[in-house]
Amino acid sequence: MAIVTLLTDFGLSDSYVAELRGVVLSAAPGVVLADITHAVAPGDVRAAAHVLGRAWHRFPAGTVHLAVVDPGVGTPRAALALRARGHYLVGPDNGIFTHVLRDTPVEIVVLRVPADAAATFHGRDVFAPAAAALANGVRLETLGTWFTGLPERLATAEPRYEGKSVIGEVVYVDRFGTLVTNLTAEQVPAYATLEVEDLGLGPLRRTFADVAVGALVPYLGSDGAVEIAVRNGSAARRLGLGVGGEVRVRLDVVRGKK
Amino acid sequence: MAIVTLLTDFGLSDSYVAELRGVVLSAAPGVVLADITHAVAPGDVRAAAHVLGRAWHRFPAGTVHLAVVDPGVGTPRAALALRARGHYLVGPDNGIFTHVLRDTPVEIVVLRVPADAAATFHGRDVFAPAAAALANGVRLETLGTWFTGLPERLATAEPRYEGKSVIGEVVYVDRFGTLVTNLTAEQVPAYATLEVEDLGLGPLRRTFADVAVGALVPYLGSDGAVEIAVRNGSAARRLGLGVGGEVRVRLDVVRGKK
Amino acid sequence: MAIVTLLTDFGLSDSYVAELRGVVLSAAPGVVLADITHAVAPGDVRAAAHVLGRAWHRFPAGTVHLAVVDPGVGTPRAALALRARGHYLVGPDNGIFTHVLRDTPVEIVVLRVPADAAATFHGRDVFAPAAAALANGVRLETLGTWFTGLPERLATAEPRYEGKSVIGEVVYVDRFGTLVTNLTAEQVPAYATLEVEDLGLGPLRRTFADVAVGALVPYLGSDGAVEIAVRNGSAARRLGLGVGGEVRVRLDVVRGKK
Repeated sequence: MAIVTLLTDFGLSDSYVAELRGVVLSAAPGVVLADITHAVAPGDVRAAAHVLGRAWHRFPAGTVHLAVVDPGVGTPRAALALRARGHYLVGPDNGIFTHVLRDTPVEIVVLRVPADAAATFHGRDVFAPAAAALANGVRLETLGTWFTGLPERLATAEPRYEGKSVIGEVVYVDRFGTLVTNLTAEQVPAYATLEVEDLGLGPLRRTFADVAVGALVPYLGSDGAVEIAVRNGSAARRLGLGVGGEVRVRLDVVRGKK
Repeated sequence: MAIVTLLTDFGLSDSYVAELRGVVLSAAPGVVLADITHAVAPGDVRAAAHVLGRAWHRFPAGTVHLAVVDPGVGTPRAALALRARGHYLVGPDNGIFTHVLRDTPVEIVVLRVPADAAATFHGRDVFAPAAAALANGVRLETLGTWFTGLPERLATAEPRYEGKSVIGEVVYVDRFGTLVTNLTAEQVPAYATLEVEDLGLGPLRRTFADVAVGALVPYLGSDGAVEIAVRNGSAARRLGLGVGGEVRVRLDVVRGKK
Repeated sequence: MAIVTLLTDFGLSDSYVAELRGVVLSAAPGVVLADITHAVAPGDVRAAAHVLGRAWHRFPAGTVHLAVVDPGVGTPRAALALRARGHYLVGPDNGIFTHVLRDTPVEIVVLRVPADAAATFHGRDVFAPAAAALANGVRLETLGTWFTGLPERLATAEPRYEGKSVIGEVVYVDRFGTLVTNLTAEQVPAYATLEVEDLGLGPLRRTFADVAVGALVPYLGSDGAVEIAVRNGSAARRLGLGVGGEVRVRLDVVRGKK
């Protein structure tokens, strides 16, 4: 039976997520629901795109991903359904699919908006019915019209070279206070060291326990991005750094630096 | 296979919700579990009733709703199981079913309390087994005795007319800080304007994006109630208003008012 | 179909839990996922062990419990899979199974760690695949090698006798601020009274409503441990007590004490 994942900024205290669940289970009995998250900060499309980008491809082909962080609900922004690598994704055209669209050929349809859809709750009245239909095997192209433009993508910073350094930035902070950067393994060779402002963090380590409890530790994260953590603590708090904060990779050999 | 929804104030950090899940899945293998919420503030039966009232009828007929916000656990308050519109609901007789009971004919049974039920955890030892039994197709009336009294209902404020105004009040505040009122479309004609204290909010809009970012916006919410939000912000914080706060609908034509 | 429960300290805002879900559902289609909790404080193995100890045996035999609170991820600590009372449990050898191991014969296997497992995310790359395999009916012993040592167990305080008193301690605090102790019914006969510092709490009551709203109430909790709550309030806040805090059971008859 098809899986439908749910990703929203609705939180878990109100009825909104349950209304999605009810609509999907009513229209597609037997579907398997799986939350991605509902704790995206209200309207934070960038964080939603990051989390979706990490999670969606872990599910089996055929999965339908309902992704609704939608501050522009009720405006003319398009409601989309996508097919990518055998998965389906449903959500607003506001950049939430930025990481899905990277290097992935997609087919995109603009969903019809029923006349009686609540102007403030397309999650329930537009996207959930579309997700249920796809889970039921309804063909993508019957849900609307082919999308002929370019879907929204969030501008994403790329690391830049500056003398003997590469400058990356923090793109996400997780619940542990770990700083996820836009740096990848190829920008951080084994001899390179990392710095945040004037603080040297040393070379990439393998895991948290390679440093003492309470120490900062840079490492290659489980999704291929360079991350900075504090062992048993929060790097975000320690460094006072958030999304957009700069991380420097020094490619010259640093000696005697603490 | 039958769906069992869960609504509690148990939170998500302890074992309590998992114990419910385990009991239901042990007694009714194959049942589909779906959370409504577990983040109701401890003992807030009013909020629980509101969330349940919005969510339950979105699920398909045959669904069993387990609703346990139960500050009176272990007292003589009755443990109930209801049938309403082809759904089943299970929970304490403390007003949690207030919105379900509105305009809906119900059949109600008082559940037997097993002698070994923990006096502080009827959710696990009384309600979850009853929900599992109903999901298994056990007939309602075999779970106890017909309830002959009137089930508890929370007093709910009705909007009142005052000269050329209607005075409503806030009945729920959601995670976005949106104020949900007891006003409905019929009390707010197109020419009416809303006020909170001396602040004019203008007429109902269609959606958030009909005002500037950061502005207050009244609109007809997705459940038919008038709501007040701040676009990309929190109306509760902006207005300093919570449950019980007054919202005025002015039916006279207001000119020149900002 | 087999059930796989999930218990982590990953929180619900990031992609990590969804990655586990995706991996399990990809490798074991049709499995039923059920959360125990993901809100364990980061690295709090003791709390995780407590919650797991209460919840796991409520699920039916055959259930696979994936328990990953793993501050030592990537170190030589063993990755384990256990069979206990017909259940399977998968997680790190760091004490998280302390309560499962109590009075329960177990068979234990050390899981193979795939060469390409992310050193910081064994939850996804080691434990989730093992859980999926067990859910698919793969035999425990084929997942690794028999574990011949003693699995880690957290030191747990036992109540101690001191004159005419028993001194217990708080072992867990739940979301309501209820203090769960290591005292059981046999240490608190009907004539005994409880004290925290100099404050008398009286004898065990049956349920919250046996005291006035706002009053402290000791009682035998739903898992057999003595607990202290405040009716409609938080005992942790009222008493300023947390894990390790002392609770005294007076076995002498106290007269005239308020």
